[in-house]
Amino acid sequence: MSELAIRFAKANGARFVEELKALLRIPSVSTAPEHVDDVRKAAEFVAEGLRAAGLENVRLIETSTAERTGHPLVYADWLHLEGKPTVLLYGHYDVQPAEPLDEWKSPPFEPTERDGNIYARGAVDDKGQMWMHVKALESLMKNGGLPVNVRVIVEGEEEVGGEGIATFVREHGDQLKADAALVSDTEMFAPELPTLCVGLRGMIYTELEVKGAATDLHSGMYGGAAPNPFVALAQIIAKLKDEDGHISIPGFYDGIEVPTAEELAAWKTLPFNEEEYRSHEVGSTELTGESQYSVLERTWSRPTMDVHGMPGGFIGAGAKTVIPAKAMAKISFRLVPGMKPEATFAKYKAFVESIAPKGTQVNVRMIHSGEPIVVSTDNVYIRAAKAAMGEVFGKETVFVRGGGSIPIVGDFVRELGIPTVMMGFGLPDDNLHAPNEKFHLANFHRGIESIVRFLGKVGA
Amino acid sequence: MSELAIRFAKANGARFVEELKALLRIPSVSTAPEHVDDVRKAAEFVAEGLRAAGLENVRLIETSTAERTGHPLVYADWLHLEGKPTVLLYGHYDVQPAEPLDEWKSPPFEPTERDGNIYARGAVDDKGQMWMHVKALESLMKNGGLPVNVRVIVEGEEEVGGEGIATFVREHGDQLKADAALVSDTEMFAPELPTLCVGLRGMIYTELEVKGAATDLHSGMYGGAAPNPFVALAQIIAKLKDEDGHISIPGFYDGIEVPTAEELAAWKTLPFNEEEYRSHEVGSTELTGESQYSVLERTWSRPTMDVHGMPGGFIGAGAKTVIPAKAMAKISFRLVPGMKPEATFAKYKAFVESIAPKGTQVNVRMIHSGEPIVVSTDNVYIRAAKAAMGEVFGKETVFVRGGGSIPIVGDFVRELGIPTVMMGFGLPDDNLHAPNEKFHLANFHRGIESIVRFLGKVGA
Repeated sequence: MSELAIRFAKANGARFVEELKALLRIPSVSTAPEHVDDVRKAAEFVAEGLRAAGLENVRLIETSTAERTGHPLVYADWLHLEGKPTVLLYGHYDVQPAEPLDEWKSPPFEPTERDGNIYARGAVDDKGQMWMHVKALESLMKNGGLPVNVRVIVEGEEEVGGEGIATFVREHGDQLKADAALVSDTEMFAPELPTLCVGLRGMIYTELEVKGAATDLHSGMYGGAAPNPFVALAQIIAKLKDEDGHISIPGFYDGIEVPTAEELAAWKTLPFNEEEYRSHEVGSTELTGESQYSVLERTWSRPTMDVHGMPGGFIGAGAKTVIPAKAMAKISFRLVPGMKPEATFAKYKAFVESIAPKGTQVNVRMIHSGEPIVVSTDNVYIRAAKAAMGEVFGKETVFVRGGGSIPIVGDFVRELGIPTVMMGFGLPDDNLHAPNEKFHLANFHRGIESIVRFLGKVGA
Repeated sequence: MSELAIRFAKANGARFVEELKALLRIPSVSTAPEHVDDVRKAAEFVAEGLRAAGLENVRLIETSTAERTGHPLVYADWLHLEGKPTVLLYGHYDVQPAEPLDEWKSPPFEPTERDGNIYARGAVDDKGQMWMHVKALESLMKNGGLPVNVRVIVEGEEEVGGEGIATFVREHGDQLKADAALVSDTEMFAPELPTLCVGLRGMIYTELEVKGAATDLHSGMYGGAAPNPFVALAQIIAKLKDEDGHISIPGFYDGIEVPTAEELAAWKTLPFNEEEYRSHEVGSTELTGESQYSVLERTWSRPTMDVHGMPGGFIGAGAKTVIPAKAMAKISFRLVPGMKPEATFAKYKAFVESIAPKGTQVNVRMIHSGEPIVVSTDNVYIRAAKAAMGEVFGKETVFVRGGGSIPIVGDFVRELGIPTVMMGFGLPDDNLHAPNEKFHLANFHRGIESIVRFLGKVGA
């Protein structure tokens, strides 16, 4: 059954790519109110793909409430194999904003093939990887049927915190009842190296607003006596993290769980060249952060803080001598196992309030959050995934962690009590969340084959 | 002669205001390339006003060169009284950007009268005050002629550093030969209190750019190892100025001249209420800055640093988990007598380069600069101005300094060797450079009368 499906996927590979391009043309930027209709269009496209694959009960689930406007979930299932396990396949159809637009070599919503890659916003994160799921299901359905029961849930708010799906999982978890989840929203550790992600950092994303004067003031007339909210923000940020990357919030590191000696030892065997990472991936003169930890520890198992932008004041060309009345910093923290988003936010908020510079008022808001998670490698689903990817790539599958957050994985553990297989096919240079995002097309096809094999093993 | 002119000005006051409104409707924002034609339109409007007043040799002087696009100067003169002094009248017809637009109660380029004020960008800075000059000259010319020789020079780049006029003064100073200059671009210390400004801070306006990674990165994947340019900027800014407002650049305060004991004593007699200044003008919970100096010293005779905006990264609504490749801070310093812009910039640049955080590259650019100046109060022109304003307001005129920069005043001293009378009619709550800029109409009319009287006394 799997072999026929794999042959079908190969024969139809070109069509699958054309379909993906059509999906990539829809600018489903979930954070942008002006794209709300595009986000829904992408949801309908996915629903149509699931219907065409032969899935049942395909429908959009609305997530808007009186308090918020949400983007719809796409649901489908096929549940006809009594006694066989049920796999919940998850993906997301929303994408990050494409800005800065002028750094794209081809327009972000006009998918373009170059050197075996497809370039577009969402190519790898996550439309391309989500579409692998749909196409693996289609390949199986059209060649003898599925080897397991499946449910599919695809969300449109992953890039904005996933509130809609989190609420749905919490309130209607019974509609997603399954034995394990499959998520393809991570990356391979290196080209050609089959990789399963077994841990993710959590996060809190916040806005820190500082108010000084009641109105914008002229810096000539008031400079020296009026509080400057950008200077205040700089002072606060400089106190949040020291120059060795250590975060200075009292109690911030309390209770964090360190990786096992075995896991740390395995990380040391991974093909990682720090100098190449610095020069080719990051491209900075030096790497930063806590120098007593390795780069993999710093990005996988240590919490961090980043500033993403500082809105307010004068940002046009030239000069304006204004002391703005207020300024903001968009600040996020990555969390590791043992940390709780709410508790971390409370410590951060209390610390910032305690160090608010003279003459300023600070206001800290949580925009969204996700819990850190670690998946046990000792279960039948991870073993099936490891074997499936190993067969497709002809190599031993490695276990890694991811530095980013996929909040839903934590919800699956907590609310549904099921393990998640994070089988991703992105590459380290795929420019996730950045200009010139791409997906290596060979990995799109290998991903489909890996999923077909994985489902076959789970149902065997 | 003066009395007739004053009567004429009063009879024509309503027309003068309507003309000013027409000028205020022209969005002559000198820093905005899209407004280059509007800036020229404003120049032509001023030239037409000078012609109508009866001035001679009215013309636009182009300031563009191979290296830069400049805005024109407007020149006029009337030089028929041999043996009498020549007064050079200076003003500017360009304005600051109007952003943030949503904070204006009436649109910035639709002048609106409310409660005896005229609201518009440029109302007081400096179109309204410059138009007082033109109308004072018209009132005299149409009522017996001028009592002195005059030259008029009006620039369109005051808000962007005044490079065009600075070059013109340096290279063609002979065309502006005069005995004293009159500038109305300052404010009164308090409503109803005639005020002459006899000192101004200088400034340097800079852009500090920090580069980290070669491209924007995902903060989940790279957070903890990749340099964050906003965090780096925060660390730099926090090191430039301590929490008591003291600037930490080595040698920054070297050679600064402190006010005389007499000047400091006079400042103490001014009607200044720190609590009212804090609550009504600044509107912050506390004032900031060097606590060992009075507020007037902090804003008039102490150098300062301000951050005006921090372009780069993600500033939209919601969340984007990006580590931007670069970020910038717009930073200016106010300078006091004894400091030189070039030398201060060099110290700042060297210090910033010496503290550039690990993994980052800093690039410091000077956008524009102006020298600090102090005018002697012991000359015939200041005495005439003091008497003229005293007569109009029925009160003793006070001497103050200004915290802002009018670079041209330094050029007049240095290049033309003449003293400048800074006779301003703005009020402390006129919202200079901020939303809802206004000009108190009573002061517009009193300004015209004061200038008529001043010229009369100089020519007596």
